[in-house]
Amino acid sequence: MTTYTAPLKDMQFVLNEVLQISKYSNLPGFSEASEDVVEAILEEGAKMASNVLHPINQSGDKEGCTRHEDGSVTTPKGFKEAYEIYKQGGWQGLSFDPDYGGQGLPYILAVAVSEMVSAANMAFGMYPGLARGAADAIHAHGTDEQKQKYLPNMIAGEWGGTMNLTEPHCGTDLGLLKTKAVPQGDGAYKITGSKIFISAGEHDLTEQIIHLVLARIEGAPEGVKGISLFIVPKYHINDDGSLGERNGVMCGSIEEKMGIHANSTCVLNYDDATGYLLGEENKGLRAMFTMMNEARLGVGLQGMAISEVAYQNGAAYAKDRLQGRALTGPEEPEKPADPIIVHPDVRRMLMDHKAFTEGARAWMYWSALYGDLQNVSEDEATRQKADDYMGLMTPVLKSYLTDRGYWHATNAQQVLGGHGYIQEWGMEQFVRDARIAMIYEGANGIQALDLVGRKLPKDGGRAVMTFFAEIDEFVKDHEGDEDMKPYVEGLAAVKADMVEATQWFMANAMQNPNNAGASSMDYLGLTALTCLAYAWAMSAKAALEKKDSSDDFYKNKLMTAKYFVDRVLPERSAHLAKIKSGSEAMMALPAEAF
Amino acid sequence: MTTYTAPLKDMQFVLNEVLQISKYSNLPGFSEASEDVVEAILEEGAKMASNVLHPINQSGDKEGCTRHEDGSVTTPKGFKEAYEIYKQGGWQGLSFDPDYGGQGLPYILAVAVSEMVSAANMAFGMYPGLARGAADAIHAHGTDEQKQKYLPNMIAGEWGGTMNLTEPHCGTDLGLLKTKAVPQGDGAYKITGSKIFISAGEHDLTEQIIHLVLARIEGAPEGVKGISLFIVPKYHINDDGSLGERNGVMCGSIEEKMGIHANSTCVLNYDDATGYLLGEENKGLRAMFTMMNEARLGVGLQGMAISEVAYQNGAAYAKDRLQGRALTGPEEPEKPADPIIVHPDVRRMLMDHKAFTEGARAWMYWSALYGDLQNVSEDEATRQKADDYMGLMTPVLKSYLTDRGYWHATNAQQVLGGHGYIQEWGMEQFVRDARIAMIYEGANGIQALDLVGRKLPKDGGRAVMTFFAEIDEFVKDHEGDEDMKPYVEGLAAVKADMVEATQWFMANAMQNPNNAGASSMDYLGLTALTCLAYAWAMSAKAALEKKDSSDDFYKNKLMTAKYFVDRVLPERSAHLAKIKSGSEAMMALPAEAF
Repeated sequence: MTTYTAPLKDMQFVLNEVLQISKYSNLPGFSEASEDVVEAILEEGAKMASNVLHPINQSGDKEGCTRHEDGSVTTPKGFKEAYEIYKQGGWQGLSFDPDYGGQGLPYILAVAVSEMVSAANMAFGMYPGLARGAADAIHAHGTDEQKQKYLPNMIAGEWGGTMNLTEPHCGTDLGLLKTKAVPQGDGAYKITGSKIFISAGEHDLTEQIIHLVLARIEGAPEGVKGISLFIVPKYHINDDGSLGERNGVMCGSIEEKMGIHANSTCVLNYDDATGYLLGEENKGLRAMFTMMNEARLGVGLQGMAISEVAYQNGAAYAKDRLQGRALTGPEEPEKPADPIIVHPDVRRMLMDHKAFTEGARAWMYWSALYGDLQNVSEDEATRQKADDYMGLMTPVLKSYLTDRGYWHATNAQQVLGGHGYIQEWGMEQFVRDARIAMIYEGANGIQALDLVGRKLPKDGGRAVMTFFAEIDEFVKDHEGDEDMKPYVEGLAAVKADMVEATQWFMANAMQNPNNAGASSMDYLGLTALTCLAYAWAMSAKAALEKKDSSDDFYKNKLMTAKYFVDRVLPERSAHLAKIKSGSEAMMALPAEAF
Repeated sequence: MTTYTAPLKDMQFVLNEVLQISKYSNLPGFSEASEDVVEAILEEGAKMASNVLHPINQSGDKEGCTRHEDGSVTTPKGFKEAYEIYKQGGWQGLSFDPDYGGQGLPYILAVAVSEMVSAANMAFGMYPGLARGAADAIHAHGTDEQKQKYLPNMIAGEWGGTMNLTEPHCGTDLGLLKTKAVPQGDGAYKITGSKIFISAGEHDLTEQIIHLVLARIEGAPEGVKGISLFIVPKYHINDDGSLGERNGVMCGSIEEKMGIHANSTCVLNYDDATGYLLGEENKGLRAMFTMMNEARLGVGLQGMAISEVAYQNGAAYAKDRLQGRALTGPEEPEKPADPIIVHPDVRRMLMDHKAFTEGARAWMYWSALYGDLQNVSEDEATRQKADDYMGLMTPVLKSYLTDRGYWHATNAQQVLGGHGYIQEWGMEQFVRDARIAMIYEGANGIQALDLVGRKLPKDGGRAVMTFFAEIDEFVKDHEGDEDMKPYVEGLAAVKADMVEATQWFMANAMQNPNNAGASSMDYLGLTALTCLAYAWAMSAKAALEKKDSSDDFYKNKLMTAKYFVDRVLPERSAHLAKIKSGSEAMMALPAEAF
């Protein structure tokens, strides 16, 4: 019942007009990504998303995955065929290292494609998404032999992949993990333990699955310093590369969840499974964490993507459903009632939604561009700045985009009234699917703690200071520009609040770390508003360059930017006031009083 | 897996110490409601809620209702037995007119019991809740004969009841409804049409169901002025009161919904069903709307109730789950990790939740007390004030408590991390169940429009002016009271914002009604914050009277009140700034740009 049309025009506006990626055509990857190539790729991706992936989104949710008695898992009807199309399209290797079969295109382009896949069918997108994450980890930490052995098949989409961190008694606090690894003397290990919440843990889309598993080598130190990362293939791999016997890892059960039913969330039982060390002994967490930024950006992207598809369906309903009359008098007097989009409060939900999604897209792609620059820039200062930004922005994008993505999906559901609550209409699935993104890949509270505890103070606050300086420069550059005034003033105001909050942290978090923890989520919210205000100011600038265009796209972009300033940005003051109230009232109650 | 324990101590604190209901013992109903009687009733209700209703909450969600080929519907396992206990307990008639078998106790007490029922099992509570609503409508608008015919059995819990408003093409805009009623010359009508989203529309809990149905009498005017209300019993009733043949109303299907699976949401098809006019011809909407206040308060109560049970389960997990260490150093060094309640951001979610739920309870019960005074006060000025307050508060309670109830349930789910997403843990059910309350009984946006479009300007703004004067008096009475200072200052500040917003409406809504619509939801939010601030100030005052008590309950109450002022009340400034930005940016985009 739902539909999805990739917002190609907005994507291209961000890539070409706001970020002007053609400026980077001297860099590896970007040199292949001319405007024509980008357009062609996005159009192909859009077709797959709308015609192949979205049509099986609701049916996949309804059917879910099925675990059979032998531990094998079947994905919902149509998933295997859709995966085949995805695989044949070469999508898995889009931005991967050409040495292993990838196409080496910029990461920012992979992010744009990933947005379309997640919007069209989030549960589907997780299968290749997890495989790509595992491939990235092997690429970053594997030996040459390991890379040759695993990556070509993973990048061709022939093999899947997973990340195995969580155990029943430990999620956030991985130092508690118990899965053990016993060295066999031949370089291999026997892995034994139970992992839970393993997304895409078992399925029928690929002939092989490469599990990456955190475990503790016998005799290793307790806590996080004794954790190693292992490659555990579902099937042993023969010397000629063919698949051999089944390894000792089995899906014990599939979790019954609130949403993403079409993705198999597995309990994986490891029973003397043969595994191979990836990276160094006892440095498994570090190896895992180097992959975290990209994985977390990917989850933030899911939040924005679900927000987009929910918006599209909410807006379509609002234009179609006739109910009541405009407050200013009938707009379609010949009909029995006006479409509900005439009602200001319906518009409030849709404009909030639009201002979020478009702003988030610009911010996300801007961050992805830094992800590229971090890797391929020839200038060390640029690489450092990119690295700083990625560190600073990642927890903010992950947390804010998923929190708000869920919230906006809920509002889009609200636009449909009672129909929003009925499964057939598909809106409630968006809400249920979006909900997981606030939890996995580090719950949102952990992101906030990462921001204030690690990313903010790192290198004496260099990242945030660089960011402030960049905004100051932007503001200064546009002083006196009447057209830019509302956007620049809004940006300057929220940045000033963020500076004040940052100073409050410096003054108060050292003396009592609870002050940092207590205000971490509001600081993250204020940071997000600053980033969005910057993204909107950059977007407004690009739109103003076309202000005389006959294409209403640019006028509408400016109106949405203005809405953001008027109706979203005021939340900054609530964040700042909460931050400055400190931790006293929050920490006062004894635990037993809860 | 979830548990529910009625918060009896907090309920009694609100009833006896904050509202001091014993002051009203001269009034009908209250004279029977001594502190002992109230305590005994609440304790019995608490037992039923915890031991009978909550244990079938998760199983009811999982099993759902089943429609059989003959159109009959079976409720989930255990519901019939639980209903029998509810019925035998006499709960249905607690606050109903004794002339028809009710116990005539105050409405406020029925609200307290209803909170427990909804918290324990919202889907269950809807069956008797809808029947009570139908009984109220018959009581208010029926002839003596109708009242004698229907009410005793409905109040004894022997017969169920429903409200039939929505049709496929009309929900909010009832003027569009098509169900028709043809007079038969003998006082009866033949009703034909299709109604959707009928909660408790068909089930096996009672032998009979009394449907109240909005329909248009042949030849009646178009729009809302041609709608009448009819009583349509599921079974014809013989002259001796026994049940006769089946009437022409059948359940065509059960909706597959996001939640409240244990309540049958039906499509009801009326095919020449015999119906009897309730109230006057063509004045059906008015008759229905006189029942709206109570029904809407009931839905607001569901939001608060789900918030309470979600809070309890989130807090229990936070005290039990060991993960990480306190930022200020290990609190339970002998254990492998500290319970997660040591983490400030976990506390933030729980304190937000606690500050909301307890404040909302005081506010809701305070409003319910006015519901009583409206009916039974001997003083006309008091009755008028009560009527004004109920009119003003009802849309605010309905909308804010359900929005926030859902949001807090989502946060309680977040406390459980990955487990929160798994059905077995029960937290995601609270979220799915809570979601409907934002939609039914008038979507929350409609509540906001009712507030600014009808309730605020009514009688020259008398209701809100009375409310402002009451707050001013409270503030004045506590000037110079050092202990009360933070609560009184917070209250005065948010009230000042609300005054400013109200003046903004007076100045701007007349010239452009879109200004009222655009800011309606933020005005509702600001009103809610003012009410909560008042509820917390009253609660703080009551707690301070026991500040030397050895019972920590009062100290904890004051800390939670302080948290509300520090960490919730700052949202007021965002609401005010948004309100004052007007409707321009919201209404600017042409519909096709969405």
